[in-house]
Amino acid sequence: MAVYTEVSDEDLIKFIANYDIGEVVSFKGIAEGVENTNYLLQTITTDAAAPHSYILTLYEKRVQPGDLPYFLGLMDHLATNGISCPTPIHGRDGASLRELAGRPAAIVSFLAGMWLKKSTPAHCAELGGAIARMHEAGRGYDGHRTNSMSIASWKTLIAQTSDKADTVVLGLAGVIDQEFRYTAARWPNDLPSGVIHADLFPDNVFFLGDRLSGLIDFYFACNDALAYDLAICINAWCFEPDGSLNVNKASALLRGYAAVRPLTRQEFDALPLLARGSALRFLLTRLYDWINHDAAAYVQPKDPTHFLDRLQFHQQVDGPVAYGINFEDVSG
Amino acid sequence: MAVYTEVSDEDLIKFIANYDIGEVVSFKGIAEGVENTNYLLQTITTDAAAPHSYILTLYEKRVQPGDLPYFLGLMDHLATNGISCPTPIHGRDGASLRELAGRPAAIVSFLAGMWLKKSTPAHCAELGGAIARMHEAGRGYDGHRTNSMSIASWKTLIAQTSDKADTVVLGLAGVIDQEFRYTAARWPNDLPSGVIHADLFPDNVFFLGDRLSGLIDFYFACNDALAYDLAICINAWCFEPDGSLNVNKASALLRGYAAVRPLTRQEFDALPLLARGSALRFLLTRLYDWINHDAAAYVQPKDPTHFLDRLQFHQQVDGPVAYGINFEDVSG
Repeated sequence: MAVYTEVSDEDLIKFIANYDIGEVVSFKGIAEGVENTNYLLQTITTDAAAPHSYILTLYEKRVQPGDLPYFLGLMDHLATNGISCPTPIHGRDGASLRELAGRPAAIVSFLAGMWLKKSTPAHCAELGGAIARMHEAGRGYDGHRTNSMSIASWKTLIAQTSDKADTVVLGLAGVIDQEFRYTAARWPNDLPSGVIHADLFPDNVFFLGDRLSGLIDFYFACNDALAYDLAICINAWCFEPDGSLNVNKASALLRGYAAVRPLTRQEFDALPLLARGSALRFLLTRLYDWINHDAAAYVQPKDPTHFLDRLQFHQQVDGPVAYGINFEDVSG
Repeated sequence: MAVYTEVSDEDLIKFIANYDIGEVVSFKGIAEGVENTNYLLQTITTDAAAPHSYILTLYEKRVQPGDLPYFLGLMDHLATNGISCPTPIHGRDGASLRELAGRPAAIVSFLAGMWLKKSTPAHCAELGGAIARMHEAGRGYDGHRTNSMSIASWKTLIAQTSDKADTVVLGLAGVIDQEFRYTAARWPNDLPSGVIHADLFPDNVFFLGDRLSGLIDFYFACNDALAYDLAICINAWCFEPDGSLNVNKASALLRGYAAVRPLTRQEFDALPLLARGSALRFLLTRLYDWINHDAAAYVQPKDPTHFLDRLQFHQQVDGPVAYGINFEDVSG
């Protein structure tokens, strides 16, 4: 929860003048989003009875400015193709990306809904369906972005964390080193691929009541194996606080997905390995943040050991059936 | 900037069900307010075309629960009497105050506008007028609350900070001790009194363009000398970053006030002393927060020395004329 960048009154007025969205009536920093600064912006047009809400995002250091056209173009593309997600607002000059307070910045539409602090298998089924529809809608997108959090990056993160990993959990450096060798040697490169979200944690999925209302935060989106999004969601949505898998949730997620886009045999077989890789990826980034955390920063780092528990679960599973599915259940 | 208390989905739904404001469509923590947790709440009713915005506040440890009926009753009273401020929303049971996530909590109306990061004398004149109208509107309010930040509390704060004050600025403990003796011996008890806001810093005053749109955050409001609100605003609005007084701003503030409610001779004469007292009050609370700051907390403490500069300015002034006014200018 953080507002990293303050915006002066003059800069805001000048920025908004690029758009056809009326006059600013409210501008409040939002205590969500750990990577970027988000403001809730309300404007009113002369013909409107009530203000209209938007999100104004200032992109901070973790986002590569060169990637922003890919992310914003993707949101445009997905929205055009029926996916509920924040839609970039274009200025009178046609551009959705410009600069504010020395940062790249964009205004996107405000998406109704709230993220779930507690989810059920039914929510996971909704999520699965939404991911599949997003994957289908992403097919026609002509942008391309390599996954910056793929195996190559894990190697760098391991080098940056290995000397201190054992101060977090004794033996962690060894576990990570061994897991990396195992995963890297077997990582599949021929799975069906396309645009994936790559960070669909619960705070990036909005619901209205029990219905999924949209997906947000596409700032890790990339081209990679579609099933890797599912592996991330198994880790992000389907574990209990005690570290055990909720099989009902995993099963509902995968069946919800497959009802829209059936899995291939290769994807089905690869699930445990993809889940291990995804657990390792989040273990590494959280470990890095944990070790390099600035005590004076607004953002508290997340406990990396949750992903060690998940990794160890996936290491011992006896194939994809551990996630509550047989191939027939997800092959259409 | 902080969200101290998270609210579960179930608790939120149950809480909102007490009100006649429709269904929740959005609920986002706001990165403003250092004392309480504030959420922007949007709801929609079946007959409305667009969602309606509210602020949901959870009162944290600095607010005495016993004071909340005074604060909420005051906001009701002021709104009824034409003052633009957040208005408490009453539930079907008539109550505006109830409990959420183990905290006292209330929903208030959403006030359009933004606080100014940079103000002009014209803004200060607007502010003066708004304070005077608030003072007039407060007359009929039958609640009563002693100023918890008055002289009696300064003594306590001095006792709690004196041993470490010199680690912040060498000699500070002595300056504070001497100033307290001076101020306490002369503090006026017979000035016109009534309901004051007592914390009208720029972030508590909203503007739309150059017009003041409302006052927020009444959680230090109390019954005290009316002119003390002006003394606080001289300190909070009228100094340059280099510590010098902007006489044009002070003059505009006081004239703007007096155009609505003229000052008495006693109030005029008391201004330098009230300004010293108010500078001491904020110096002490910021010093306390600075010394007792938890490095892991979300909120960065504010530099107390800004109020030492202000105090030293008021110590050397040659009467109220230093604030850019003669008695004739403000006596109606």
